[in-house]
Amino acid sequence: MDKILRIDVSAEGGPKATQMPLGEYAGMGGRGMTSMVIYNEVPPDCHPLGPENKLVIAPGLMAGTAASTSGRISIGCKSPLTGGIKESNSGGQAGQVMARLGYAAIILEGEAPKDSLFKIFIDKDGVTITPADELKGMLNYDLADKMKAEYGEKVAMISIGPAGEMKMSASSIAITDPEFRPSRHAGRGGPGAVMGSKGIKAIILDDKEMKMRKPVDSEKFKAANKLFAQGLKQHPVTGEGLPAFGTNVLTNVVNEAGGLPTYNFKQGRYEDAGKISGETFAELETQRGGKPTHACHRGCAIQCSGIFVDKEGNYVTKQPEYETVWAHGANCGISDPDVIARLDFMDDNIGLDTIDMGAAIGVAMDAGVIEFGDAEGAIKLVEEVGKGTPLGRILGSGAATTARAFGIERAPVVKGQAMPAYDPRAVKGIGVTYATSPMGADHTAGYAVATNILKVGGDVDPLKPEGQIELSRNLQIATAAIDTCGFCLFIAFAILDQEETFGAMLDVVNGMYGLSMTGDDVVDLGKKILTMEREFNKKAGFNATHDRLPRYFKREELAPHNVTFDVSDEDLDQVFNW
Amino acid sequence: MDKILRIDVSAEGGPKATQMPLGEYAGMGGRGMTSMVIYNEVPPDCHPLGPENKLVIAPGLMAGTAASTSGRISIGCKSPLTGGIKESNSGGQAGQVMARLGYAAIILEGEAPKDSLFKIFIDKDGVTITPADELKGMLNYDLADKMKAEYGEKVAMISIGPAGEMKMSASSIAITDPEFRPSRHAGRGGPGAVMGSKGIKAIILDDKEMKMRKPVDSEKFKAANKLFAQGLKQHPVTGEGLPAFGTNVLTNVVNEAGGLPTYNFKQGRYEDAGKISGETFAELETQRGGKPTHACHRGCAIQCSGIFVDKEGNYVTKQPEYETVWAHGANCGISDPDVIARLDFMDDNIGLDTIDMGAAIGVAMDAGVIEFGDAEGAIKLVEEVGKGTPLGRILGSGAATTARAFGIERAPVVKGQAMPAYDPRAVKGIGVTYATSPMGADHTAGYAVATNILKVGGDVDPLKPEGQIELSRNLQIATAAIDTCGFCLFIAFAILDQEETFGAMLDVVNGMYGLSMTGDDVVDLGKKILTMEREFNKKAGFNATHDRLPRYFKREELAPHNVTFDVSDEDLDQVFNW
Repeated sequence: MDKILRIDVSAEGGPKATQMPLGEYAGMGGRGMTSMVIYNEVPPDCHPLGPENKLVIAPGLMAGTAASTSGRISIGCKSPLTGGIKESNSGGQAGQVMARLGYAAIILEGEAPKDSLFKIFIDKDGVTITPADELKGMLNYDLADKMKAEYGEKVAMISIGPAGEMKMSASSIAITDPEFRPSRHAGRGGPGAVMGSKGIKAIILDDKEMKMRKPVDSEKFKAANKLFAQGLKQHPVTGEGLPAFGTNVLTNVVNEAGGLPTYNFKQGRYEDAGKISGETFAELETQRGGKPTHACHRGCAIQCSGIFVDKEGNYVTKQPEYETVWAHGANCGISDPDVIARLDFMDDNIGLDTIDMGAAIGVAMDAGVIEFGDAEGAIKLVEEVGKGTPLGRILGSGAATTARAFGIERAPVVKGQAMPAYDPRAVKGIGVTYATSPMGADHTAGYAVATNILKVGGDVDPLKPEGQIELSRNLQIATAAIDTCGFCLFIAFAILDQEETFGAMLDVVNGMYGLSMTGDDVVDLGKKILTMEREFNKKAGFNATHDRLPRYFKREELAPHNVTFDVSDEDLDQVFNW
Repeated sequence: MDKILRIDVSAEGGPKATQMPLGEYAGMGGRGMTSMVIYNEVPPDCHPLGPENKLVIAPGLMAGTAASTSGRISIGCKSPLTGGIKESNSGGQAGQVMARLGYAAIILEGEAPKDSLFKIFIDKDGVTITPADELKGMLNYDLADKMKAEYGEKVAMISIGPAGEMKMSASSIAITDPEFRPSRHAGRGGPGAVMGSKGIKAIILDDKEMKMRKPVDSEKFKAANKLFAQGLKQHPVTGEGLPAFGTNVLTNVVNEAGGLPTYNFKQGRYEDAGKISGETFAELETQRGGKPTHACHRGCAIQCSGIFVDKEGNYVTKQPEYETVWAHGANCGISDPDVIARLDFMDDNIGLDTIDMGAAIGVAMDAGVIEFGDAEGAIKLVEEVGKGTPLGRILGSGAATTARAFGIERAPVVKGQAMPAYDPRAVKGIGVTYATSPMGADHTAGYAVATNILKVGGDVDPLKPEGQIELSRNLQIATAAIDTCGFCLFIAFAILDQEETFGAMLDVVNGMYGLSMTGDDVVDLGKKILTMEREFNKKAGFNATHDRLPRYFKREELAPHNVTFDVSDEDLDQVFNW
């Protein structure tokens, strides 16, 4: 992982690839890499779809090694959805494969020739870029089938569906899983639109004959990695809850806590939550011959992924994530697991962020476009997005634009990005993260739900404003560092609760790179990344007034606890005052 | 004009009117009044369509008097289009009538009951508010016919069309002309959506038995007013150009200067400009029995308005303004005056800002929705807006949202509002106003075209960056004061060039109010208003980064002069540094 691949899409005769050494980016990976490149090289006032923006793809520092649960990949750009800096994080195989090929980053830059489309193939021998007009408008799963026929299924793929080609603000970038299904997505913030604006449909990565990356201190690495994996296995969340039920283990928990946003954030409990819980999905999957436990990439110790099949046992989609089940389920008043699974598949196929899509449909329901609970209607809406009809264009632009187009106030967004599956009034720590993260409303940027609801890493009352600032601050700092290493965020459950697992994680990194990083160094790294991101956003036009929730969260009470969001503006402004 | 009428639309049993003295707003009128009320009473972070926003309607300080050309009305709110403070200015009869009824402001406030619609009737005896569900979805001209049957045609009306009811960001508020045609519009910034969000369809103003407002110093007023009117008559722009050809006298002039934005701001000259010039329109109107010279309100000495008729001599619409002719004409490659007139009528009828509509259609053409020059296609697009189809919702949300929905960079907007009919690269003074005005891209906020192109009030080379900051600054200050008095902005041509006309204007105001204001006082008033507006915007989230043109104006050269916008950011930041 000692080189960067730059692809200039404005080169004469089509995109041109150039390899270069890491230079100033040495020692950076994942989110640290994407944010630093965007910070250094992209003018903050540029248009996200214009020639000055760049798309940066970077595996984490630990990718391509034997380190457990470290295959996450970061995709960065100036976001078409938020207008600020974006790191969108995904599982799937691409991070590991790209790291083994030696690339710390692939950077797409320049202005694509109008109406042209290319694909990029990368293996041990180098980079081949070919026109791919025949792939225009192709759905991600069809694309995977076609690429599999061409390259076999042992490769990894990074691709966009029609939504990215149409440059929709809610479009995702798909990453294939170990079975070459384009089911893992860098969904948030519209990175697919930036890839589309660069005229790149797919990047195929083939690590044949490439080896696992070797640690500097092999003994230390091996011992620490064993301890680390053990720690993940022994924590109840990463060792039991997530493997058994996936992330959707949360539906019952968050619903019970009164924080499950229902009917476009109108109430905090959904009467049919039980019908769409992780327990229900897992049972259904087991009954039908699907798979409730599966790894989104090789080398994962948690395996929170799964396979959802229909009544005949045929693959429908990956096990829908909690955020997706919420977005298309409780938020829209839809309680049929098969409908939710179908919507998940459609989003993946078209290349859409399930969170902003579900939120956009919730807003459209609130505006009267269709009724809450109208499952067939919701499916038709996503079909419209895939076809790029005017209504599809509205929804595919995300929840904020949908609210604008239909003239309603109730858009649950921060910095233009839809809130995920926790109502900030009833889970105030995550409300602080939504408000202040440089990414826009994003649960993964500082997952205070852990401490507010799951009581991991301490216990901060979710319904009171006290303690939320510090909680969100510490989690945002830690997350930026974890996202740089490429560890899955879910390791946080174990490292927050188990000191020895945190130490093991540090030693895995230290063993790999021959370092002696301490916990303080991790904090410093996190702060450094957040500072760059905030500085970019400041130059792009953001200030304290944008670190706020929409006013109606302060005005309208949320049942059943009848709470508003009452963390003060003054306190919110202290999150980054460390 | 010694009282304010507040209408609380959230009152039980329907909207409730309360009269109150001017209090802290004494001495304010027009834009000064609207901006001060918004600044004092509206939380800058509120949602424009939410209960905390207010709609403020205020005639200028000189309205309802015998002062020449002083009947403009200001409508203020937090703008659904820009998210910042908004004063949208219109001609028509309402300003004069409202002033004679004694109201310095009507303020709509609170949260309207869902799906209800009301109309307000105001005469010497007071205020009557009645449910108006039967008016739902009614076009402005149909509404005028219905109200005429009910109240006669000597009243004035302030109303919204379907666009305002649908809360579209590009919706206008219509004001009737002397013949009770809803043809004058407070178009910019979406005030119609705010009126719609308050559930008010129409305000009918009847000044029967009310008298002209009396000056404090009648002699002084009378003498000054005569001199003032003479000054307007003797200046070539206000005495000849505008009466003969209307504002569209500018098409040939700006085209010749290479600053007529053509094909969505792709070039500065339109090959068919001659077919849509003011000269062509006036000739057509005269030939067909229309009227090239007409006053938008009684008491106007300039009479730049006109009546456009079809081949049979039947009324089609008012003489389309230059901005409209450009927006639907050159900007879309449409050169048929009858099509442009029809689009103008449709916009007025549906209740839409012609500038943002034309710009949105230009963007849609650039995105390939229809071809440039497709006149029938453009008509169909505006029909879609009127019907509120999804495509209509996109376009009715203005040019910025249209560009977002169709995924293109080239949105000619500042702070979300579409640029009017002067390319900022070839008329750099107006570019400075677009960039820095608290209103978003707005030619009327500081009409540097006067000095750049028409050589009124001096001569500043339009193609060079030098001198533009000072020019725009001085004009923005003067304009804020003129908009407060309710004088038509076009008096600026005469008062900039003719010192004695400026003195006469001052004495008209001084005679009316028994004051002894000097030129310096006018400047202070202008600065005070701009300071409040900027302060509101700052609290709403705007900063220096928003006082910029989109980057592509700095990157792409404009033919025929092959110029970019090269006023530096540092210089732009000096506009309000007085």
